[in-house]
Formats: sequence, structure tokens, C-alpha cells
Amino acid sequence: MDIAIIGTGAIGGYYGARLAHDGHDVHFLLHTEYDYVKAHGLTVDSHFGDFSLTQPNVYRHVDEMPPCDLVCVAVKTTVNRQVFPQIRPVLKDGGGILLMQNGFGYEQQLAELYPNQHILGGMCFICSFRDGPGVIRHTDYGMMTLAELAESDADNRDFLTRIAQIFTHAGVDTDVKNNLTEARIRKLMWNIPYNGMSVLGNCRTDVLVTNPALRSATRAVMGEILEAAQACGVPIEASFADKMVQLTDEMEPYDPSMRLDFLAGRPLETEAIYGNFIGYAQAHGYDMRYAKMMKWQLEYLQARK
Amino acid sequence: MDIAIIGTGAIGGYYGARLAHDGHDVHFLLHTEYDYVKAHGLTVDSHFGDFSLTQPNVYRHVDEMPPCDLVCVAVKTTVNRQVFPQIRPVLKDGGGILLMQNGFGYEQQLAELYPNQHILGGMCFICSFRDGPGVIRHTDYGMMTLAELAESDADNRDFLTRIAQIFTHAGVDTDVKNNLTEARIRKLMWNIPYNGMSVLGNCRTDVLVTNPALRSATRAVMGEILEAAQACGVPIEASFADKMVQLTDEMEPYDPSMRLDFLAGRPLETEAIYGNFIGYAQAHGYDMRYAKMMKWQLEYLQARK
Repeated sequence: MDIAIIGTGAIGGYYGARLAHDGHDVHFLLHTEYDYVKAHGLTVDSHFGDFSLTQPNVYRHVDEMPPCDLVCVAVKTTVNRQVFPQIRPVLKDGGGILLMQNGFGYEQQLAELYPNQHILGGMCFICSFRDGPGVIRHTDYGMMTLAELAESDADNRDFLTRIAQIFTHAGVDTDVKNNLTEARIRKLMWNIPYNGMSVLGNCRTDVLVTNPALRSATRAVMGEILEAAQACGVPIEASFADKMVQLTDEMEPYDPSMRLDFLAGRPLETEAIYGNFIGYAQAHGYDMRYAKMMKWQLEYLQARK
Repeated sequence: MDIAIIGTGAIGGYYGARLAHDGHDVHFLLHTEYDYVKAHGLTVDSHFGDFSLTQPNVYRHVDEMPPCDLVCVAVKTTVNRQVFPQIRPVLKDGGGILLMQNGFGYEQQLAELYPNQHILGGMCFICSFRDGPGVIRHTDYGMMTLAELAESDADNRDFLTRIAQIFTHAGVDTDVKNNLTEARIRKLMWNIPYNGMSVLGNCRTDVLVTNPALRSATRAVMGEILEAAQACGVPIEASFADKMVQLTDEMEPYDPSMRLDFLAGRPLETEAIYGNFIGYAQAHGYDMRYAKMMKWQLEYLQARK
């Protein structure tokens, strides 16, 4: 299977390298690290065991890449508007786009641009970060939830199943869901409380779970997401929130991606992680006040910086 | 009239000095600045005109003070628990206690300790701060809202009116209200959004009103307070929130007291300004989520510091 990785960062680089390591033809799009990775390859320091790609297929521009059966888009949501229209050359008829990002509502935008492609969401529950040029450090977890935007039919189900299989075979725990909206909200159950609060509190996950006030705050935000999900017609069991707390309790102290973005002076994914779902819940009559307060504060911090 | 000032800071010092300047026998309790003020007096640099008390009546201990007709308690709410029981020696039968603090719910605690005293709340809308030993700098506003805790009867009304008169005569704009709970909530309409957000955003009022995200946040918090007031049976007109925004727009850039406390490493008045009213609203079935989020974040910042 020909697979394109649009955005070879902590997520795209990690999962793309796993697929290449498993024998697929994986084509990596890079910008700043192109020369380095072309010369030195790609290294994954993983808590599942380290491995390297010595001569990965790397590209500087999308139009140099071959058409692919699966195009994994793993750029930051903040550049979606520019990147989405540019991936047309790499799409193969009847193929699919797997959106491996945080956030909410972007698969719909892809579907409007590319109505003949399978549009999948990949919700990655993973602790990984870029640790110097060509190096991805994977410190914890790694599972991916997959769901297709379109209503399930035989053709869709077949494609989704094939994609899940190639990831599973490459050593990625996968979880296939029927309802993309629900799967996206489940991912937000971690991202909304922990990403933003790590920026607002200027701290890692260990502080978020041990400081009593922040523990109360993050748990309350999860309660709000449960209520919002219910209002949106995709109820999620309350124990799922408890599970997110437990996973974070057991996590090695970690800087969520939004904190890394903030510290590096990159734009924050406030619309992706907060704004879009707040708007979706609002359209379903539910007012997410905890999330709104966090979003305003994040916007202020970003503007000040 | 004999008047005691318990806590000669930016509030007690300012209003006490006005009363003394107007000819009342005012007795100031001081701690760290006792020696300085004993020797050099008390200076008020006021935007209404500067003035000084060259030989104010100052005391180190409550039991050295004479019994007074009016005892103005103007300490930080964080020491109420220690201070309230200590003021007994300075109370005169049939006199009153005027609680000149931010916060909510403390007049009730005074009434339990001193059931035979008039218990008044003084909500001071003033920009003032201590600017070195014995110096109070008064930069803006200065009005005080007065209300009595007890239900209004002829005796109460007479006392409340007398107190309002002496302040008015001393050059303080006063506003007498029948309902203390409502008056306290009106004061919170400024304190809840601006005090906490100045700490969380590490900024003065000018940033709170000009940054679009913080302006939205503070205005949303006010909306929540309007809803809470309604739920508590003391509806407040929506235009009052607009008025608070307008007053802050027109204010000289100002560090709210909570920010000064935070910068100086003093305890924050989170229970007084947030916790007590959040609990009161909760008991009336209303969940103040914006305020709760701010309170958790403030508790975290305080714990970290």
C-alpha cells in the first residue's frame, strides 16, 4: 500500500515510521528537516523498542509525491486551511485521507474538498514529541482510534477495516469506531482539560493530576464534556472520564502538545480543541462554560506572547 | 462620634482619615506601621485633593482603644477568623460594626458573635493602595454603598442613616441600600471578574478591558453573576454589568487588590470573593462555572507560589 505522510512530526513521523518499518511504501513530506532526514534517516526512540528508517522516501513538495492509497494528514490544525487544498496531487481515486490530528470538525472540511475519498479520523492517544532533527521520542501509550466520517456501508467498512489492519500489523493498537463524532469527543475528553490547563498552569501532566485545585478543575471540565456529548446526541459513559484521569495519573510526566506549541511560540490549536466543539455543543443548546473560560484565557496568553 | 478603624490600610486608612479630617474622634489600629504613623502621621494623596493627619489617634492593640459608636473593620478577609473575636473591647452597646471589605457572607459571622450590634456592610468602590509607610494613594472613584444586615426597622434605619450622613459629610459619596445581599452581589460584579483575572492574566485593568479575549471572559463572568443573583432571589438589572465595564474602561490602569496581594505573596481572598458566593448560589441551585474555574486556577497559583 502506498501511504503518504503529510507532516512528519511527532504523530505523522511516529505512525508513518511504524508503517514503513512494517514494509509499506511510505512517502514522507518534510519541510525544515528534509535535508537532515534525507541524509540521516528517521529515528524512533520508542518505549516499545527503538528503530530507524535509514533511507525513507522523503519529499519537499506534495507534487513530487506519488498518488497514494492512504494519505495521512498530521500537520497542526492551525495550518489546515492552507494544507488541505494542497494535497490533491497525492490522492488516488478510491483511496482515503486519514486525519491524524487533535481537534473537532475538520473531517467535514476534507469531505467538502474531496467528496470521492474515504475520510477517516485517527485519534492518537500517544505521548510523543520531536527530540531534535529526525528523531521522534515516544514515551508512553500509542493507541489509535479510527472512524470514518461517512455513514457505514460495505465499501466504507471494508476500507476502514483494511486501514485498521495495516496499523495493527505494524504494531499499533487500534480501535475501530462507528461514530466519528463520538470518537472525536472522546479524544477531546483528554485534550480539552489537559492541553489547555498545562498552558494556563505552566506545568506538565504530573502537576495537573496532583495539585488538588487543578485536579478538580480538569475533572469538572470532563463532566462538562460528558454533558455536552449527551446534548449532542452521542452520550458517553461517565466512567470514560475516570479512565482518562487514571491514564493521566499513570502517565510519565508529560508536556501536552499545546504546551510545547506555547513554549516554542507556535500558534495554539484553540479553535481545533476548544472553539469548534464549543460551537457544536452551542448549536445543540449546550453552553460549555469551563471550556469557554479556558479558551479565552488561552487566546489572551497567545496574544500577549 | 467615636469611630474605630480596625486595619489601617488602603481602605480603612482612607475612609478613617476622611472621617478624622472631618472632625470625628477616629481611633486607628495599626501593626507594622504603628511607630511610623505615631511619629509622622497619616497622609492621603487623593485625586480629590491631598490631606494629612499630623497626630492621629493610633493604637497597637484593640484593648488600648476606647469603646466606639462605630467600629470599621477593614482587614483582609483572610484574617477575619482571627480578628472578629478580638474586637469585643472596642464595641459600645447599641453601636455598630461596619465591615469595609470585599467578599460575601461575613456580616452573618459578625452577627453571630455580636448579636446586639448593628451590623453594616460597606462596599467601597475605590481605587486606592498603600504607597509607603503612612501614605495612602487614592487614584480613582471612592463611593461607598452601605447596607445593614438586619431587616429594616425604625431603629436600624436611624443608625444606618446616621452612618451614611457622617461619611457623606466627610466627602464620601454614599449610597444606602435596603438589601445587603444584593449590595454584596453588586460589588462582586466587579470583584469576581477583575480581581481574579488580573492575577490569572498577570495584568492591570487596562489589559483586562482592552484584550478582546479577556474582555469577553470578564463580561461572560458578569452574565453568570446576573444569573446567579436571579437564582438567589435578588435580581440585578443587566445594565449594571455594562456599567461596571464602563467604569473599568474609564479607570486609570489599576492593579486590583487581589493582584497586589498576589505580587506581595499575601494570601488571596479566594473564599471571600469566589468561594462563599459560589456556595450561596449552589445552595440556590445555580452552578457558577466561570467563577469556579477561576477559583481553581487561583488556588493553584497560590499553592504554587
